[in-house]
Amino acid sequence: MRFPRRLPPNARGPTSPQLAFEFGRTLNTSYAEHMNFEQYLEERRTWIEQALDDYLPRETEPPELLHRAMRYSVQSGGKRLRPILCLAAAEAAGGTAESALRPALALECFHTYTLVHDDLPAMDNDDLRRGRPTTHKVFGESIAILAGDALHTFAFELLSQCPQAAALVAELARAAGTRGVAGGQCDDLQAEGLPPDPTFVRRIHERKTASLIEASCRMGGICAAAPPMILEALGRYGRAIGLAFQIVDDILNVTSTPEQLGKATGSDAARKKMTWVSVFGLDESVRMARDLMTEALRHLENFPGPTEPLRQLAIHVVERSR
Amino acid sequence: MRFPRRLPPNARGPTSPQLAFEFGRTLNTSYAEHMNFEQYLEERRTWIEQALDDYLPRETEPPELLHRAMRYSVQSGGKRLRPILCLAAAEAAGGTAESALRPALALECFHTYTLVHDDLPAMDNDDLRRGRPTTHKVFGESIAILAGDALHTFAFELLSQCPQAAALVAELARAAGTRGVAGGQCDDLQAEGLPPDPTFVRRIHERKTASLIEASCRMGGICAAAPPMILEALGRYGRAIGLAFQIVDDILNVTSTPEQLGKATGSDAARKKMTWVSVFGLDESVRMARDLMTEALRHLENFPGPTEPLRQLAIHVVERSR
Repeated sequence: MRFPRRLPPNARGPTSPQLAFEFGRTLNTSYAEHMNFEQYLEERRTWIEQALDDYLPRETEPPELLHRAMRYSVQSGGKRLRPILCLAAAEAAGGTAESALRPALALECFHTYTLVHDDLPAMDNDDLRRGRPTTHKVFGESIAILAGDALHTFAFELLSQCPQAAALVAELARAAGTRGVAGGQCDDLQAEGLPPDPTFVRRIHERKTASLIEASCRMGGICAAAPPMILEALGRYGRAIGLAFQIVDDILNVTSTPEQLGKATGSDAARKKMTWVSVFGLDESVRMARDLMTEALRHLENFPGPTEPLRQLAIHVVERSR
Repeated sequence: MRFPRRLPPNARGPTSPQLAFEFGRTLNTSYAEHMNFEQYLEERRTWIEQALDDYLPRETEPPELLHRAMRYSVQSGGKRLRPILCLAAAEAAGGTAESALRPALALECFHTYTLVHDDLPAMDNDDLRRGRPTTHKVFGESIAILAGDALHTFAFELLSQCPQAAALVAELARAAGTRGVAGGQCDDLQAEGLPPDPTFVRRIHERKTASLIEASCRMGGICAAAPPMILEALGRYGRAIGLAFQIVDDILNVTSTPEQLGKATGSDAARKKMTWVSVFGLDESVRMARDLMTEALRHLENFPGPTEPLRQLAIHVVERSR
């Protein structure tokens, strides 16, 4: 899925961010408009993964097994989309990436917990995730449940250490609860085998996926002490790309291979899942994902900070191949 | 297990608290020293259960199934020890019970989530809890996992609505994480079949049970804006009765019947669990629980508010028969 709006990857070099990985130092984030987006993604990913390594409890500390399972689950080379969005949103709102570091890590830990639980035999029963055996395949079901639980708690612990703790916890909890991720996952399970229903599939995707991506953007804004209008715009941007993200996930489950995707493909159809593709068809799904991207870009007006990363991220979400 | 320190249940009537169950009204908590403790417990339980009913998401609202599973899990007539301790701690620290209502409910929701997950087939595989089929027996494993997850999130959502959100979230997260409940549960699973180890069983019980009871007391103190010395005393009191509580649980698993207890008995031995009784023997366990109660009472000095409920609760924890 290629889009004309996408800038050539090396049109112009980035302003070479000096990344230092020790806690406390500065991340140079002043990208030129024609940024090298691939390099930006790679640098952000590296920064986030180093910080996750710093913040997660050590494997050498008891309970070692649980800490190992948590780290195995988190350190699996995911896209890190939610933390990257959170940092970019903080900058777009006029703040710094550093101010949003803990919320960014919290989002990734929270997201990982949902994956670990979703992969369980009683849920989606997936053996492969990000190209590696799922947590319960390596550590057993009981430790996988506990590792998910501990990552869930750890996300809120990280947020409690932020100056804006109350607002951030409220934001994540709303996105995570029964009107968000947990509710979406419940709907998703219940929808298996039901006839196609456009309203229902939209509700599932909005809750299961878009709510947390919306929260990721808003949480970045909260860290930058953004005014309500900016928070609202970040939320709308996030909701649009969040829905687009899940639509593309459904598309890739049909069009991709396990090797490309790092997880099982064709599994949605085999499980008679209600997906965007099963409801709207492939072509219409592609069109709708593009429309959502265009809608997301419209919300990026009048920001005090740089919005180019958010623009590129919106495009990336829809054009990605895995 | 009867103790001479326990006051006769009807030595003197309570100051008849006027309980009104609608949100927003006042709870009269000025109990005389020779309070009617049974009545106090009953009134607090009723108040908490009514508030849980008010605050939990409605069954009539989607996702209905998940909301039903959450309510089924919470509304099972438990002892409500943690919320009762939280409210009593707030009052002992000179605050009101009302100020600690949300944290009290959060503690019960959090505690219920741990029970729902612990009962899962992959964990302790229990069919009976508080005299009723466990959540996964009624709703299936996947919904039970999700209901636990949603209650976990909901606890933090409730805390985010409190004036002391940051401190409360930090307190619950610390008690809940790998150095608390999640870590204790992991140790508990790993200890099955191991030879008796006094240090290890203490660590398990401190993490699995005492940490959350300690947090319950401290969170009440936080709501009352208690100074560090009072918070410290509340924490020590909570740690002592928390450990005593788990020791008594282990004792009752040996000495009680399923009818008395509302859950399986003898299961610890069948599962070769490392319990206080299996490590120290029955008589020594009873003695240690009593010593911990005495220690807990010692911490209740120099409080600005009434401490009699906390005194009675400490005794109750050790003398309970279920």
